[in-house]
Amino acid sequence: MKTILVIGAGKSSSTLIKYLIENAEKENWKILIVDRDKKLITDKTKNHSSTEAFELDMMNEEARKPLIEKSDVVISMLPARFHIPIIEDCIKYKKHVITPSYVTSEIKAFNDEAEKAGILIMNELGLDPGIDHMSAMRILDHVKNLGGEIKYFESFTGGLVAPESDNNPWNYKFTWNPRNVVLAGQGSAAKFIQRGRYKYIPYNRLFRRSEVIDIEGYGKFEGYANRDSLKYRKIYGLENIPTIYRGTLRRVGFSRAWNNLVQIGATDDSYVMEGSASMTHRDFINSFLAYNPYDSVELKFRYYMRIDQDDAVWDKLVWLGLFENTPIGLNEDASPAQILQAIMEKKMNLEPGDKDMIVMYHKIGFKILDKHREINSWVVVEGKDQTYTAMSDTVGLPLGIFTKYLLRGDIKCKGVRLPIRREVYKPVLDELESYGIRFSEIEFETTKEEARLQ
Amino acid sequence: MKTILVIGAGKSSSTLIKYLIENAEKENWKILIVDRDKKLITDKTKNHSSTEAFELDMMNEEARKPLIEKSDVVISMLPARFHIPIIEDCIKYKKHVITPSYVTSEIKAFNDEAEKAGILIMNELGLDPGIDHMSAMRILDHVKNLGGEIKYFESFTGGLVAPESDNNPWNYKFTWNPRNVVLAGQGSAAKFIQRGRYKYIPYNRLFRRSEVIDIEGYGKFEGYANRDSLKYRKIYGLENIPTIYRGTLRRVGFSRAWNNLVQIGATDDSYVMEGSASMTHRDFINSFLAYNPYDSVELKFRYYMRIDQDDAVWDKLVWLGLFENTPIGLNEDASPAQILQAIMEKKMNLEPGDKDMIVMYHKIGFKILDKHREINSWVVVEGKDQTYTAMSDTVGLPLGIFTKYLLRGDIKCKGVRLPIRREVYKPVLDELESYGIRFSEIEFETTKEEARLQ
Repeated sequence: MKTILVIGAGKSSSTLIKYLIENAEKENWKILIVDRDKKLITDKTKNHSSTEAFELDMMNEEARKPLIEKSDVVISMLPARFHIPIIEDCIKYKKHVITPSYVTSEIKAFNDEAEKAGILIMNELGLDPGIDHMSAMRILDHVKNLGGEIKYFESFTGGLVAPESDNNPWNYKFTWNPRNVVLAGQGSAAKFIQRGRYKYIPYNRLFRRSEVIDIEGYGKFEGYANRDSLKYRKIYGLENIPTIYRGTLRRVGFSRAWNNLVQIGATDDSYVMEGSASMTHRDFINSFLAYNPYDSVELKFRYYMRIDQDDAVWDKLVWLGLFENTPIGLNEDASPAQILQAIMEKKMNLEPGDKDMIVMYHKIGFKILDKHREINSWVVVEGKDQTYTAMSDTVGLPLGIFTKYLLRGDIKCKGVRLPIRREVYKPVLDELESYGIRFSEIEFETTKEEARLQ
Repeated sequence: MKTILVIGAGKSSSTLIKYLIENAEKENWKILIVDRDKKLITDKTKNHSSTEAFELDMMNEEARKPLIEKSDVVISMLPARFHIPIIEDCIKYKKHVITPSYVTSEIKAFNDEAEKAGILIMNELGLDPGIDHMSAMRILDHVKNLGGEIKYFESFTGGLVAPESDNNPWNYKFTWNPRNVVLAGQGSAAKFIQRGRYKYIPYNRLFRRSEVIDIEGYGKFEGYANRDSLKYRKIYGLENIPTIYRGTLRRVGFSRAWNNLVQIGATDDSYVMEGSASMTHRDFINSFLAYNPYDSVELKFRYYMRIDQDDAVWDKLVWLGLFENTPIGLNEDASPAQILQAIMEKKMNLEPGDKDMIVMYHKIGFKILDKHREINSWVVVEGKDQTYTAMSDTVGLPLGIFTKYLLRGDIKCKGVRLPIRREVYKPVLDELESYGIRFSEIEFETTKEEARLQ
């Protein structure tokens, strides 16, 4: 019998726990699940006999160590900043660790110790990062094996609302952390490379330089650039690729409307607005507009942003309630970004019965036998309900499937790793297909040597 | 005989040293001047008998202490971050300290110790901060003494090029630290208050919301908002003023053109551009534009920024050499802001014979005996040459004049101070007039109860 320790039983663990329970008997697993809130665990396990629930704080060393000691593999679903003490104990007790989080330089530094202990620290094994790596590497390895030379690589992922639940003018609802949506793209400029030339898009232009992607059966999406596309050259072994671009998908029209909120300063998280606890939505917007005792906030906004009143952008802004004389309702003064999030959460949260949707799209150009060819590969995953969401499925299933193959002894690699090798991605992608997560692919000859990015 | 210690003999100390030498005999002063480069000192003193030059690093404790010990007052012209050890020694040896730098919370914390030692730590005694405080407080005290209620306060300062040397389409040259010009306005949003309502302008909009100021004999200027106007409410005792706004002056048209460089991302200082050491100006600009092997960088830029080819903005951008195939010429990869600065320095540095100009303008509205009135007060100072610049005069003279009255025993205040009390500003402003730094003032009745800010 093998023992799996799952740390964290929040929203994103639903499908993972379901998968582990479904495979427990056949694989002869015992599943230990830890959370600070036991109800989160039992809601998901229904006290299934293969599971054992522990209500405790994994930052408590005394409580943590014995649980890790008696496990064979540890899956940490905690926020990334909590992984370190868990990894330290896993090295001490020689237990594998798996997380869906981005690998950090702090975690990378454990590589030698992990190899010495004979354990695997597998990171970025969720959706994005996770399925994006695996599905991209499958194509890249295939092309390279045929002798093709990769000329461009573009990849887009988006967490959206399913078409049947898509009933607002933004074609968007919060299906994940709303704060990350409001702050998306902030920090340094977006960086990518095109035909060997570095390209930079500052935050204030990011949402005006999107690329349109058409997905069969789902219509058009737009992708805006992620912060750093350059680091994927090294990860994917594409050091000399002339063009690489990664982006985030939204429905067409989202970015142009969102840009107005960026431009007026409503997404700024760098200062607290005095007196904002007692402001209305309308006061909040008016803080960014010139003072005038006679003109309406609406007209000042349209004039400032040059929006025609019959522009679809205007419908989106009005629908969001930005101009309503409704109290924001925060308990204390907050930053513009926090206030905007609070206003958006009144309108954009998923309603009961709503379903989410994940869209991933790769475009890979290569040269083979003096011909230019392109592969487009995409997957769309719709959630089943508000527990087994597309997000929960696409994060939890790769973790669960990989754990199975690891415990069967099929995975040989050790040390700090990402899921970019065939040994890892093949079994995971193959089994994902049986859960309906199957990439469609087309390949064709093209006259273009290069992608046309904006 | 009194001894004055001047620390730092750079560009901004020229007029200060000249003033001290001119007054040394009559006032019975000995002037000690320290710099790491003795030539900077002797260029300015010509070994005048009242002066003594010391080539040493004031961060060297051994060297510093004896000099401070034998002085009566210390004037520190070093960058603000070097003041702390000097202030600590001044407290120890009970010596007054004067600086033109912004007071920091670290310096404010010395207040009790300074009062106990019976010394004065006078900060912000240059131009801006400095003359702005003094000239504003003179008007504000006057209005308050008459029983007026201050309704709005606006204040603008700019370091520009004198009309006779103004020969480029930006009507601007670097007369002070170019890096501060390139980074101006970055960080948090500009904050001010208008008719009791907080207003915020994000960086990406800052240069599109300028206010035009007309100064008799000098024509039109535009002012864009400084980062934090709000803190001046407390400094000037205007806690309940409904409208306060401080800004920076440029010639009309500067901001609209500069905004294009902000928008494309050329003023970003948050990342290093890979390969930029070997780029040309044109490559640099092209990094911010969409890839296209056929369109010109010029057309892509005009299209991206929606600039007509006959717009004066376009002349400014072309004149700057942004589209030239000239190597940038930096020794290593740099941030966009550093590269833009390097390009601008090729065109915008003062040429031999060029003169600088300082413009300061206050607009103060108040209510008195049920009438609304407004005072406009302004001064324009032109430099004499490249040593005795307007900047050097307006920083050095307040420091020198104040030092004289302090050593005469006319200044009674102790502790950490700003030049906002009549005891301080009156003698300084009065004597500045004999050097041609004289504020013009008009006062008139107005129907406006409020300023109209953008």
